[in-house]
Amino acid sequence: MTLPAPTAPSRDAVEPAASPKDVVISVDAMGGDSGPATVVAGLAEFLDKTPGARIVLHGRASELAPLIARRRIGDRVELMDAADVVAMSDKPSHVMRHGKDTSMWSAIETVREGRAQVCVSCGNTGALMAVAMIRLRKAEGVNRPAIACLWPSRNPTGFNVMLDVGADIRADEDDLLTFALMGASYARNGLGLERPRIGLLNVGVEDHKGRAELKVAGDLIARAAPLAEFDYVGFVEGGDIPSDRVDVIVTDGFTGNIALKTGEGTASLISEFLREAFRKTPLSRIAALLAMTSLTRLKKRIDPRRVNGGVFLGLNGTVVKSHGSADATGVAAALNLAYRLAKTGFSDKLAARVAAVGTLGHDSTETREAAVSGDVTG
Amino acid sequence: MTLPAPTAPSRDAVEPAASPKDVVISVDAMGGDSGPATVVAGLAEFLDKTPGARIVLHGRASELAPLIARRRIGDRVELMDAADVVAMSDKPSHVMRHGKDTSMWSAIETVREGRAQVCVSCGNTGALMAVAMIRLRKAEGVNRPAIACLWPSRNPTGFNVMLDVGADIRADEDDLLTFALMGASYARNGLGLERPRIGLLNVGVEDHKGRAELKVAGDLIARAAPLAEFDYVGFVEGGDIPSDRVDVIVTDGFTGNIALKTGEGTASLISEFLREAFRKTPLSRIAALLAMTSLTRLKKRIDPRRVNGGVFLGLNGTVVKSHGSADATGVAAALNLAYRLAKTGFSDKLAARVAAVGTLGHDSTETREAAVSGDVTG
Repeated sequence: MTLPAPTAPSRDAVEPAASPKDVVISVDAMGGDSGPATVVAGLAEFLDKTPGARIVLHGRASELAPLIARRRIGDRVELMDAADVVAMSDKPSHVMRHGKDTSMWSAIETVREGRAQVCVSCGNTGALMAVAMIRLRKAEGVNRPAIACLWPSRNPTGFNVMLDVGADIRADEDDLLTFALMGASYARNGLGLERPRIGLLNVGVEDHKGRAELKVAGDLIARAAPLAEFDYVGFVEGGDIPSDRVDVIVTDGFTGNIALKTGEGTASLISEFLREAFRKTPLSRIAALLAMTSLTRLKKRIDPRRVNGGVFLGLNGTVVKSHGSADATGVAAALNLAYRLAKTGFSDKLAARVAAVGTLGHDSTETREAAVSGDVTG
Repeated sequence: MTLPAPTAPSRDAVEPAASPKDVVISVDAMGGDSGPATVVAGLAEFLDKTPGARIVLHGRASELAPLIARRRIGDRVELMDAADVVAMSDKPSHVMRHGKDTSMWSAIETVREGRAQVCVSCGNTGALMAVAMIRLRKAEGVNRPAIACLWPSRNPTGFNVMLDVGADIRADEDDLLTFALMGASYARNGLGLERPRIGLLNVGVEDHKGRAELKVAGDLIARAAPLAEFDYVGFVEGGDIPSDRVDVIVTDGFTGNIALKTGEGTASLISEFLREAFRKTPLSRIAALLAMTSLTRLKKRIDPRRVNGGVFLGLNGTVVKSHGSADATGVAAALNLAYRLAKTGFSDKLAARVAAVGTLGHDSTETREAAVSGDVTG
């Protein structure tokens, strides 16, 4: 973090700016690898295509004001000055204790106050999760929040959901059940799937494979499936993550994070090899020119910028984490995802789902009936 | 498994067939997805290129004899009749109790008896590991054996080593240290790297990231590095698996198996998307023709058949597990890997490495000096 450099306006001085129909997105402008100019460029790209959205933008006002003026988006962007910035190397525990003046903290705070429906940041993931946890708090029935990502797949939507990809390094059977409920809700609201198919990541599809807690988690998820309106397909393997036999892949944050980065690493290795193969000879360079359209078509399907945005699930409020290295298009994609989720009232629907199924094991017949009736539709 | 159908010759009747200079490979002909004809075709391909190798082939003699005759490799292949076959669906525990008449058991037994230096099988991985464990036994100082795979990488050799990719579903800090020693020995003998760089797979490269046992394992591996003649590069992430900052990636068998299958799944998704992109329009089909050489060049670099062969490490004897779906080229690649490892006396070198470093913590100055002197060079 850098030294604070106090500037007006302060939080207290600012009036709520959103009209009731608009979706308001709270955006942390700082902390991305390529600086606030990229964030503001992405913002302009997004706002141009999304008339019903407004922004509360957090960061150093002296830096941000000219950027906003240049893009002519001042009428839809409210600036909140924050002197401090969370660096990528800052430890989450440090930010939790000393981060009150950072743009990240301010961006989360605006969601907590109900002045925005969703928060977007390109900053340090660990710090963002830590600040979100202490300020927004965990939703009822959630022990461990999770980060969900979208994965290019063979399904009609083009994507599968995987969680947890790194909120925490472990998850017990109850956490995995909660991940299944949250993942189903995310697939329903984010991908428009009415009845998502849930799979549990393991080292084999047979019942006897893997760790004992996975077997228990599988039983819990299977039992919750009819009430929570998803289908449980059983264990899935690493190779199934992009497959069309499943929509949501549930795993602990350690395994999920390694799978995510392994997939990204493999894709980037193949892209590199593909480029080298086409650069090798004069003839192959000509072939590359002719193949350009096809290669662009491929690139579009696996472009990580299209799937930019890890979503924090299980908090009282939705937080979208954009890749630290996102360019303007990537930032715009994350904003668009945040907008869609806010528009569906995702956060409340998810909380209702988890709370309903969570009480099923213990509570009265009324609760059960409420859960299976139309009361919970998120 | 199928019903036994007894045929001669029996084990006792067969004389050792190898000349002392030849490498003898014990091959399980059964259990692969495409049957013994594919294994024999791969065998012929391999023997044609490798004059110094002989084979002991296990399976139903009545099926195998005509295949061998047709390929005219009878002078270099000794047939061992085994009436029974391990099916892909057989549980390892079942094979351990009732598998004595299977070709897999017979293939391992030939290594145990010292009549072959290495075993190759396309069969059921779990059963193969179980039979290898009870017949060959774990090497001194090894608590958990591991399966090592080769991964296409940006390194000059074209490959990195990763282990464990599925021998067991867990590993504690001592197991991870053993994996580092075994992986270094494999990289030295299999890839010809004098001083391999070892990395420990984690969810971040910073010291404070990940599970507590990984921190301890990292300290153990760092301490063993100078004596075991490898470099420890610290934590690596999923994206580093194909990178050139590391040669050997150490992880537990649960995480490793999921990373391996995720990588394979991602590669196959991209290949599929690439084919679709080039099939889309008449123009793109013409472009594909012109790009053929470049695409073949790419395919060759990531062809899973080139890296066919998971190696079981930490047993008294080397076992190479070929992909169940391997074609003749894949089988030949696995045989070639087995041949190279047997040629270097890999199994004994690895055992010496593990034993030497394993005793360092407890034993006398002499042992330490033996370990750092030229006595152990594998």
